[in-house]
Amino acid sequence: MDFQYSPKVQDLMRRVDGFMQQHVYPIEHAHDEFVQDPANRWQQPPIVEELKAKARAAGLWNLFLPHDYGQWSPGLTNLEYAPLAELMGRIEWAPEVFNCSAPDTGNMEVLARYGTPEQQERWLKPLLDGRIRSAYLMTEPQVASSDATNVECSITRDGDSYVLNGRKWWSSNIYHPHCELLLVMGKTRFDGPRHTQQSTIIVPRDTPGIKVLRPLKVFGEVHSPSGHGEVVLEDVRVPVSNIVLGEGRGFEIAQGRLGPGRIHHCMRLVGASQRALEWMCRRVENRVAFGKKLSEQSSIRQDIARSRCQIEQARLLTLAAADRIDREGPKGAADLISMIKIVAPQMCQDVCDRAMQAHGAMGLCQDTPIASSFAYGRFVRFADGPDEVHMSQLAKWTIAKVLALETAP
Amino acid sequence: MDFQYSPKVQDLMRRVDGFMQQHVYPIEHAHDEFVQDPANRWQQPPIVEELKAKARAAGLWNLFLPHDYGQWSPGLTNLEYAPLAELMGRIEWAPEVFNCSAPDTGNMEVLARYGTPEQQERWLKPLLDGRIRSAYLMTEPQVASSDATNVECSITRDGDSYVLNGRKWWSSNIYHPHCELLLVMGKTRFDGPRHTQQSTIIVPRDTPGIKVLRPLKVFGEVHSPSGHGEVVLEDVRVPVSNIVLGEGRGFEIAQGRLGPGRIHHCMRLVGASQRALEWMCRRVENRVAFGKKLSEQSSIRQDIARSRCQIEQARLLTLAAADRIDREGPKGAADLISMIKIVAPQMCQDVCDRAMQAHGAMGLCQDTPIASSFAYGRFVRFADGPDEVHMSQLAKWTIAKVLALETAP
Amino acid sequence: MDFQYSPKVQDLMRRVDGFMQQHVYPIEHAHDEFVQDPANRWQQPPIVEELKAKARAAGLWNLFLPHDYGQWSPGLTNLEYAPLAELMGRIEWAPEVFNCSAPDTGNMEVLARYGTPEQQERWLKPLLDGRIRSAYLMTEPQVASSDATNVECSITRDGDSYVLNGRKWWSSNIYHPHCELLLVMGKTRFDGPRHTQQSTIIVPRDTPGIKVLRPLKVFGEVHSPSGHGEVVLEDVRVPVSNIVLGEGRGFEIAQGRLGPGRIHHCMRLVGASQRALEWMCRRVENRVAFGKKLSEQSSIRQDIARSRCQIEQARLLTLAAADRIDREGPKGAADLISMIKIVAPQMCQDVCDRAMQAHGAMGLCQDTPIASSFAYGRFVRFADGPDEVHMSQLAKWTIAKVLALETAP
Amino acid sequence: MDFQYSPKVQDLMRRVDGFMQQHVYPIEHAHDEFVQDPANRWQQPPIVEELKAKARAAGLWNLFLPHDYGQWSPGLTNLEYAPLAELMGRIEWAPEVFNCSAPDTGNMEVLARYGTPEQQERWLKPLLDGRIRSAYLMTEPQVASSDATNVECSITRDGDSYVLNGRKWWSSNIYHPHCELLLVMGKTRFDGPRHTQQSTIIVPRDTPGIKVLRPLKVFGEVHSPSGHGEVVLEDVRVPVSNIVLGEGRGFEIAQGRLGPGRIHHCMRLVGASQRALEWMCRRVENRVAFGKKLSEQSSIRQDIARSRCQIEQARLLTLAAADRIDREGPKGAADLISMIKIVAPQMCQDVCDRAMQAHGAMGLCQDTPIASSFAYGRFVRFADGPDEVHMSQLAKWTIAKVLALETAP
Repeated sequence: MDFQYSPKVQDLMRRVDGFMQQHVYPIEHAHDEFVQDPANRWQQPPIVEELKAKARAAGLWNLFLPHDYGQWSPGLTNLEYAPLAELMGRIEWAPEVFNCSAPDTGNMEVLARYGTPEQQERWLKPLLDGRIRSAYLMTEPQVASSDATNVECSITRDGDSYVLNGRKWWSSNIYHPHCELLLVMGKTRFDGPRHTQQSTIIVPRDTPGIKVLRPLKVFGEVHSPSGHGEVVLEDVRVPVSNIVLGEGRGFEIAQGRLGPGRIHHCMRLVGASQRALEWMCRRVENRVAFGKKLSEQSSIRQDIARSRCQIEQARLLTLAAADRIDREGPKGAADLISMIKIVAPQMCQDVCDRAMQAHGAMGLCQDTPIASSFAYGRFVRFADGPDEVHMSQLAKWTIAKVLALETAP
Repeated sequence: MDFQYSPKVQDLMRRVDGFMQQHVYPIEHAHDEFVQDPANRWQQPPIVEELKAKARAAGLWNLFLPHDYGQWSPGLTNLEYAPLAELMGRIEWAPEVFNCSAPDTGNMEVLARYGTPEQQERWLKPLLDGRIRSAYLMTEPQVASSDATNVECSITRDGDSYVLNGRKWWSSNIYHPHCELLLVMGKTRFDGPRHTQQSTIIVPRDTPGIKVLRPLKVFGEVHSPSGHGEVVLEDVRVPVSNIVLGEGRGFEIAQGRLGPGRIHHCMRLVGASQRALEWMCRRVENRVAFGKKLSEQSSIRQDIARSRCQIEQARLLTLAAADRIDREGPKGAADLISMIKIVAPQMCQDVCDRAMQAHGAMGLCQDTPIASSFAYGRFVRFADGPDEVHMSQLAKWTIAKVLALETAP
Repeated sequence: MDFQYSPKVQDLMRRVDGFMQQHVYPIEHAHDEFVQDPANRWQQPPIVEELKAKARAAGLWNLFLPHDYGQWSPGLTNLEYAPLAELMGRIEWAPEVFNCSAPDTGNMEVLARYGTPEQQERWLKPLLDGRIRSAYLMTEPQVASSDATNVECSITRDGDSYVLNGRKWWSSNIYHPHCELLLVMGKTRFDGPRHTQQSTIIVPRDTPGIKVLRPLKVFGEVHSPSGHGEVVLEDVRVPVSNIVLGEGRGFEIAQGRLGPGRIHHCMRLVGASQRALEWMCRRVENRVAFGKKLSEQSSIRQDIARSRCQIEQARLLTLAAADRIDREGPKGAADLISMIKIVAPQMCQDVCDRAMQAHGAMGLCQDTPIASSFAYGRFVRFADGPDEVHMSQLAKWTIAKVLALETAP
Repeated sequence: MDFQYSPKVQDLMRRVDGFMQQHVYPIEHAHDEFVQDPANRWQQPPIVEELKAKARAAGLWNLFLPHDYGQWSPGLTNLEYAPLAELMGRIEWAPEVFNCSAPDTGNMEVLARYGTPEQQERWLKPLLDGRIRSAYLMTEPQVASSDATNVECSITRDGDSYVLNGRKWWSSNIYHPHCELLLVMGKTRFDGPRHTQQSTIIVPRDTPGIKVLRPLKVFGEVHSPSGHGEVVLEDVRVPVSNIVLGEGRGFEIAQGRLGPGRIHHCMRLVGASQRALEWMCRRVENRVAFGKKLSEQSSIRQDIARSRCQIEQARLLTLAAADRIDREGPKGAADLISMIKIVAPQMCQDVCDRAMQAHGAMGLCQDTPIASSFAYGRFVRFADGPDEVHMSQLAKWTIAKVLALETAP
């Protein structure tokens, strides 16, 4: 047992932080002005591609993809990646600079693990190169999609094709100008064992029959240029070779995809929360009310102390979960993944709520990154399974583990 | 002691509710589409003026202005108004339909109480008629404005004029196309007793020297057409007759203005929260996951029960505060006003957070009123004094009250 | 609607408070020393009977029994009684002085409402006179007794007798030297409709076959002289005339009994919490750490403010529930009763937790009433139905009420 | 970075757990009956000395004393000891069996680090042998002792003696029949720099002038046989050679003493909480209400999931703090020690509160270890510095750390 980052990781942390300091923070304000201007909706600020090239040149590229993916991977473990993702997560859009942003990361993992050589050549390579972006279409508006057996989108075999019909929403990235690939989860059959009905299939973005109805907002933000779309699939036809791993393997793919994806979210949330705490610390040290600095108020100090405690614990839990994935795979780490998925988003919400309060109304507006981080935390309480589902599963596993103890003291 | 609404109030509740049912809810979606479309920024949906005319014709107009304002008032007490404001508050922009929206209500109270006949004729009348709207410029970005002695905006006498210089923000309504009046708080002197330096002055919106720099967002929303502006005042010159109540009376005016204003916010927050709970109840009754209705999950039931308990208590506390204002004025009700100001916004935040969770990601987007109500609750934790200031004062008063008890059992 | 106590109630409040000041607080310490001394276990301090005589002489007797019980009642409504119970509740054992202590109050209500003239003559009268005390045996250790259909104690007809067999626990008062009466809930049949199996029966304390196994502790306290007993009933035989209201009416009796009983608990919890807040206020004003009074720490002030807000809201909710019982009976008030039953015990726990913290370790020991009040609050989260059951029911009613609304805005 | 217990530690964990299973759990009930019987007050159950002999024979003795204490230490690091303390902490009195109980552990560390060879021979050796026990007298009833500069007990030089006068309380262990040693903190001077006035001195328990006034209760428990005493020191005279480390070094000693002591408490609290969770899991799996097992209720599952998450995070934070102490000493670990001191007691309180609720009223009584663990958690929120002091310090350090960052993104 050892709680120190290894020298290798410390070096990478210095490099990622240095890159952020040199290239990313300085253009943050300009970036945000650009993407929040309605005139630029669904356009990417040109600077982002420049930064991507620099990050790639600096060897800070695709760090998320674990070493067990061989040739595709830069060679890190999940545990090694965690503190780097935390640093990237300090700015909501920064992970893209390092080609480490959701949902592309999950899609790349799926293709790297389950894709045929042809699928990998056609889709994985440009994704790994950062030339295209992708969306993952799973959630549906009509049903509780946290229960994957509810999925209604149909994938029907018709000769050499599959034909998709269904309605999806919260399809992140679908508005992005570079989005070329959709991974779609649907059902290739509606009978038989419940977890063998789902399949995952590759759908090129420009396939006829894909209608993006409207962008969904998160607390008023459309998150341009990526966006979250509501999408109708009407007789969308793709070749049978686009199926991933085979019919009926969709549930399994989703499970494998969501494990690391969940802790990536959590790593980034730790970073966003840490940054909110830092903003809070600076604010209370520089603000005077009723004759003294806010930082001298014991209530403010308690807010800071509680935030620090929550962040530190969530960070340790994230690291422990990453370590377990490295050792035992997503299945062996299922309880830790659920734990951190329950803990980190709420932690982010709590920390940001306190940081907003310390900033006064400024904390709610565009002058700090805090309200946006709050919204991110709030959003992840649904993404990849709502709190309720994770708590229910975790409790079941916990009870089973306790009952299995030989003795009952 | 009696916890029943009077027949008079019950009748008014039926009328306000009926008006909402007939005229307001049906156009809510269209209204929101209009104001959230960037193409319509800072324009009022035409339907609003039609609704205002109907509400006025129905006698549901200016209900907020208490009976002690004589000729200007429709004759209700604060206690009688509370349940009506709750009904209006179910839609964030609905109070304007009844000419009961902030910050105009507070400005009208100031003018009705402290204005000269000339000021009332020129400004109060068109406000009461709903012909113009107004802003209240108090908060400043550089200083903790919850401590009014920090205000830095200067109001300097120069012959028959006052000249204003300063920077304000969170000036709500300033973008509204009908906004013609600014009530500005500044300092007519920077020495002397701390609470006699501030003055309040009337500034016509079209006075030269007023620069509206940019709209501030609340969780990504600009709240068109009203907006929250950052405003620079540069050598803004108004006649000396524009001073309200006299030099050095600004603090007193702010205190008087904020008392009822605070409970108006709270009444509306109760309504918004009640509506969120109702949406939640419908949702969980109609949604199935893992083989049963969400409403059969005990955790969901606890969320509903806790929300109901919080709403009911906040409603009672709001009513008790309104009753106290009616009996003893804002000063005599200061502790109850602080209490409800502490309680209601957090209650709204809690209730909406649970309601969002029950809706899944839908709860964060534009398809429900919940995320917007959450943001409103969050915002009011700063507006008219942050939680911290109210808690500090309330504790002081509470300690003093306890120490004054003759006996100490 | 009116939030003022009536002159009649204000007068009674003055009298109860005066009595407490003159007779009860001064002997509190001596009383507690007596009952906590193991040498005096299950003995009542002699002073209590003296105080009872004085309270009766002062007309402060049986105030809990509402006016609709005619001859037995001193004539108050539940709403009028609430603030008096609050005052009594400031000391855990004080209600007995006024013959207003649980579980006797509930038992008296049962006998006054459902008893035959003979039962009333034999048991109600001495209870109303304060000459005897009583226990209510419902909860059983083997089963979840919050679900009354689980009750296993059998009441078997045998000629002119009923024979009881079963095991009960948390039988409060059973150790009291004056306890002469047990009201027992059991089943007269184990088939048929679920809510017609239970019956309530009168069992004299000295009936053969009653074995009191041991006292149960609440956080280490046995609550001498009343105690909470685990009791075995073995072939306990009573005449058939001891049945209350008839076979199969036990569930109905329990429901009627628990309604007012629940809000009595809540009234007292408000009093205990208010007292804890007062102790806290005095403490922080008189304690200095790190160079200033605790009362100047903003975190302490927030603790006080939050406590005040919680108490005030719980008080209003208790009063609203009492008012509703007066108007519509326990059934019509069911939702409000559940609400206050959910709110008040947790409120007491929260307020006392903060008050303990402000006292340092002293707050946990016998030098303040706070730890004991905390335990009382914690205990009531189970008594008369655990939080979970009330939340589940309240949510069901709330959903039903919302779905019944004609319109769904 | 590595989150696995080393093989050495895993082996020790198996041995400590095995010892608990074989020797401690089986006699837990009998032990508790003995110590809670007023007839046995201040007597130790004879079995305890037998268990101590067995534990020592098994090499499970003094494990708390870190390897850097050379000859006195069994050779573990703090990090290695942590999971062992967790296992011992599952029963409140079990650490004594392994000679690892507070306040003796802290006193042994003081003597091992600062004692003269004579002091070590006379006092440390019998303590390490478990032949005697000891108390630590620091807290005083009149002053806020969390601020050590408030201490009022005087230690006055008089020839070859020091003479002590003062009043202490919460002197744990002072009632224990084997208690022979008191470590007393007082002031050798009342002027000069604030942190050089305090001294620590050895006082044999049988020195004339020591009056133990009364036992203090924690939620009604006196914690026999150790007890928490209020103590008056009247002209208590000891030889000058009894001073530890020299005059004016008391503050330094207290700081050094409290560092590891605080995390020992936290390790044990993790164990007590883990056990409460296990009891809760068994209970909800075996209890049926309203037709289904409690474990099938989603609200119960959320209680379990939240508890598991809190425990796991507190465990990781405790381990991280222990690791830091091993690497950088108590000073370098100060922020982590404060963090875990803030987190673990509240975590224990939260977990036990939920576990109590799942047990119904049984959870409050002597039939489970949960209420007692709750009280332990609550107590530690004061012990060795209240939450408020730790939060204040932690916030100061956190702000300083943030302000020291070169860049401010």
